[in-house]
Amino acid sequence: MSDVIERVFGVIQDRRNADPSVSYVASLQQAGLNKILEKVGEEACEVAIAAKDAATSKSTSEVVKETADLWFHSLILLDHLGETPDNIFAELENRFGTSGITEKQSRKN
Amino acid sequence: MSDVIERVFGVIQDRRNADPSVSYVASLQQAGLNKILEKVGEEACEVAIAAKDAATSKSTSEVVKETADLWFHSLILLDHLGETPDNIFAELENRFGTSGITEKQSRKN
Amino acid sequence: MSDVIERVFGVIQDRRNADPSVSYVASLQQAGLNKILEKVGEEACEVAIAAKDAATSKSTSEVVKETADLWFHSLILLDHLGETPDNIFAELENRFGTSGITEKQSRKN
Amino acid sequence: MSDVIERVFGVIQDRRNADPSVSYVASLQQAGLNKILEKVGEEACEVAIAAKDAATSKSTSEVVKETADLWFHSLILLDHLGETPDNIFAELENRFGTSGITEKQSRKN
Repeated sequence: MSDVIERVFGVIQDRRNADPSVSYVASLQQAGLNKILEKVGEEACEVAIAAKDAATSKSTSEVVKETADLWFHSLILLDHLGETPDNIFAELENRFGTSGITEKQSRKN
Repeated sequence: MSDVIERVFGVIQDRRNADPSVSYVASLQQAGLNKILEKVGEEACEVAIAAKDAATSKSTSEVVKETADLWFHSLILLDHLGETPDNIFAELENRFGTSGITEKQSRKN
Repeated sequence: MSDVIERVFGVIQDRRNADPSVSYVASLQQAGLNKILEKVGEEACEVAIAAKDAATSKSTSEVVKETADLWFHSLILLDHLGETPDNIFAELENRFGTSGITEKQSRKN
Repeated sequence: MSDVIERVFGVIQDRRNADPSVSYVASLQQAGLNKILEKVGEEACEVAIAAKDAATSKSTSEVVKETADLWFHSLILLDHLGETPDNIFAELENRFGTSGITEKQSRKN
């Protein structure tokens, strides 16, 4: 199931140069880096708002949708910069997938 | 490789109730939802700043680190709310892993 | 000149209950708190992106526009919550308008 | 009262080159643009979190503090870029201090 990130990234790569009038991904790629970053920032805000609402309502369905949106737009950003999710996976493995003893030291502060 | 998200999430779950003086995850969980959300927001800002620097410097290493940080803190948030990455994977599959024709219609606006 | 904040806040109060189809302020107030917070978050991102561009281009005109947008949406938020800019001015005076000696101690960390 | 923004900005200018070990403003200016932008982003998140809490608790005191922090860090950013609050006031006057008829048209979208 977790390979969905790689499959979604493949879709993003396929559509990068599609017709912007029919592909949301292509329209963002054509709008450029600033627009992609605005979307990443917006989605992070929406995650936070949804999380505050979830703490009151006890329903997390909006958090799930907004987190999916945040990760999706992160992937568009990675593609825009010529990066890949594989490098994020390697970084996560290197820093956070390790034994409990090293966790705290590997945090920047 | 992509199953690193599930393994990192397992580490986060294991440490949720650890001693906050030795576990960063436990210290965030104990600090509570607002602190976790501040970290998610901070990491999103750092992704954006690193991306702007990458556009100038042509080096994406900071973007990789900050995106890993953003996803890591998203996972801590999911655990805090009793959610799991599996539900994010299902949402991504449902909305963005599909054929090109449905992409645009599935976007909220 | 600085009393423009109070005058803009007066305009915001006047339009709070106007017809949302002709007043942007009324449309935001009617959309509710979450929408207003999304706009505050968006404008903060746009300030950051414009500041990174200003550091490269040496032109600050976009920073001025986006900072004005950020303050404007902060004022809409204050009105939404029944607050006023006067209380922000009092807080600024109390914490940051004082002598150099007290500055650092008054910061939260 | 509203001239507190100009007076706080004067304090920020006075401390720009102070000893970073005793002045928070000088320590931020010395840390550079990215650090200042991270603080602006952080404060915007804290405004949003405080606003969600205010909607539940009916107490707005945290919103006042966080909005003051957001504006304060905006002023540090303006000084960092060689800008002034006067230009923000002029922009606010030009776009939002006008008659109701022009409000909507002057919005970017």
